[in-house]
Amino acid sequence: MSDSSAKDSVERHQIRVRYGETDQMGVAHHGSHIAWFEEARTEWLRSRGVSYRELEQSGVILPVVALKIDYRSTVGYDDLVLIETWVKERGRASITFAYRAVFEQEARIIAEAEITLACVDREGKVQRLPDEV
Amino acid sequence: MSDSSAKDSVERHQIRVRYGETDQMGVAHHGSHIAWFEEARTEWLRSRGVSYRELEQSGVILPVVALKIDYRSTVGYDDLVLIETWVKERGRASITFAYRAVFEQEARIIAEAEITLACVDREGKVQRLPDEV
Amino acid sequence: MSDSSAKDSVERHQIRVRYGETDQMGVAHHGSHIAWFEEARTEWLRSRGVSYRELEQSGVILPVVALKIDYRSTVGYDDLVLIETWVKERGRASITFAYRAVFEQEARIIAEAEITLACVDREGKVQRLPDEV
Amino acid sequence: MSDSSAKDSVERHQIRVRYGETDQMGVAHHGSHIAWFEEARTEWLRSRGVSYRELEQSGVILPVVALKIDYRSTVGYDDLVLIETWVKERGRASITFAYRAVFEQEARIIAEAEITLACVDREGKVQRLPDEV
Repeated sequence: MSDSSAKDSVERHQIRVRYGETDQMGVAHHGSHIAWFEEARTEWLRSRGVSYRELEQSGVILPVVALKIDYRSTVGYDDLVLIETWVKERGRASITFAYRAVFEQEARIIAEAEITLACVDREGKVQRLPDEV
Repeated sequence: MSDSSAKDSVERHQIRVRYGETDQMGVAHHGSHIAWFEEARTEWLRSRGVSYRELEQSGVILPVVALKIDYRSTVGYDDLVLIETWVKERGRASITFAYRAVFEQEARIIAEAEITLACVDREGKVQRLPDEV
Repeated sequence: MSDSSAKDSVERHQIRVRYGETDQMGVAHHGSHIAWFEEARTEWLRSRGVSYRELEQSGVILPVVALKIDYRSTVGYDDLVLIETWVKERGRASITFAYRAVFEQEARIIAEAEITLACVDREGKVQRLPDEV
Repeated sequence: MSDSSAKDSVERHQIRVRYGETDQMGVAHHGSHIAWFEEARTEWLRSRGVSYRELEQSGVILPVVALKIDYRSTVGYDDLVLIETWVKERGRASITFAYRAVFEQEARIIAEAEITLACVDREGKVQRLPDEV
């Protein structure tokens, strides 16, 4: 997938795997990553001075319209995961974030992802993405 | 906890344990039961001709204000669980449901619970519980 | 994505959206679909006489290694969603399922997905996919 | 419920409400608190030099056998919640934690809880709680 090394706007956010995020394979369930990427996205916006909560309250809604995750290796309960987030593509009414989840302790990639959000208003009508995003 | 045998309005609803509901202990995580009881509550209402979705759209909101769960035994992925739901107590602006989750295949109780809902309007103000509930 | 109409081994499984699966946008959160597809996959296997639980107990583990979801429209609490599941590609040690989630009541597609599973043993070593899958 | 003020071993842990933890009432779903309390419990142990992961690997398993939550007020997406955790009761083979979730910004209590864990071995047989817990 995308290469984060060339990007200077990569935001780093750390999460710790919750017990309830594991499944009976003994590692984090593949659905857990969705919540981590979502949390990292909120922090990416905050690092740019944007509160997604306030954006939404002002009528700018960013629903996920596509996602793609490649799982490279597993991660377990209580492990610290570094999520790198950057913008891969910015359209008139959509934005695609790229992610890399890394288990720093063992210097290995856990997952890479691309998630595309549309920009809609409260009625679900497509609208222009604000400049600050 | 409560005894369902004397109640003639017990509603029975079956769920199957999802893979993602297990944790690394190899059984359903204790948080999963919350979703099962919530699903069973919707079905209890439906069996009485009430759609909780329509109730909520009409301005009758029933947030959970208290819950109590006793876990009696574990249940695993793909197991069928029978949820018995009945009303334990009905107040002017609240209702308490009792639940028993049973693993019928082995005739054992998985969990017993009591969950209390308040009745509020869209602004969160307490209001009288409708007669149909 | 893939076209299910030409496939004669499409398995249909219905789920009902849980309250806890919604988020503050008022519709099912994009992470919920992961659990639906996982449940549908278990049922696809069962319809072929295969219990994924027994497979796993016998040492055949099928972790998700890639997923791709396109969200076409939203679906809300209590809605019934039909999940169509079929095999898109079968490798020596992997299998890719295709999915289409449909809101039949309004004849619209909610999401399309492709999810690839690897076949590994208890130590995580790649092994040949059993013929029955 | 219990009073934390008299306890000198209260551990404080902060979480931020995830978007996916909200439901269509526009606030954190009542099931989300389970994950917060679980995360706070891990941190309570860590603050005492105990890794629950290592405990479990050494054969000391602490499944939840009872829980009780009183919801005092709601909390929304992106809010910071302070979780106070302390031990309410310590038995020979069980331990009960008390929790208070506080929304500091508005100085109000979100929820109070008591969660009891049993101490079992890998086969599920009750065993003595280690002294360090």
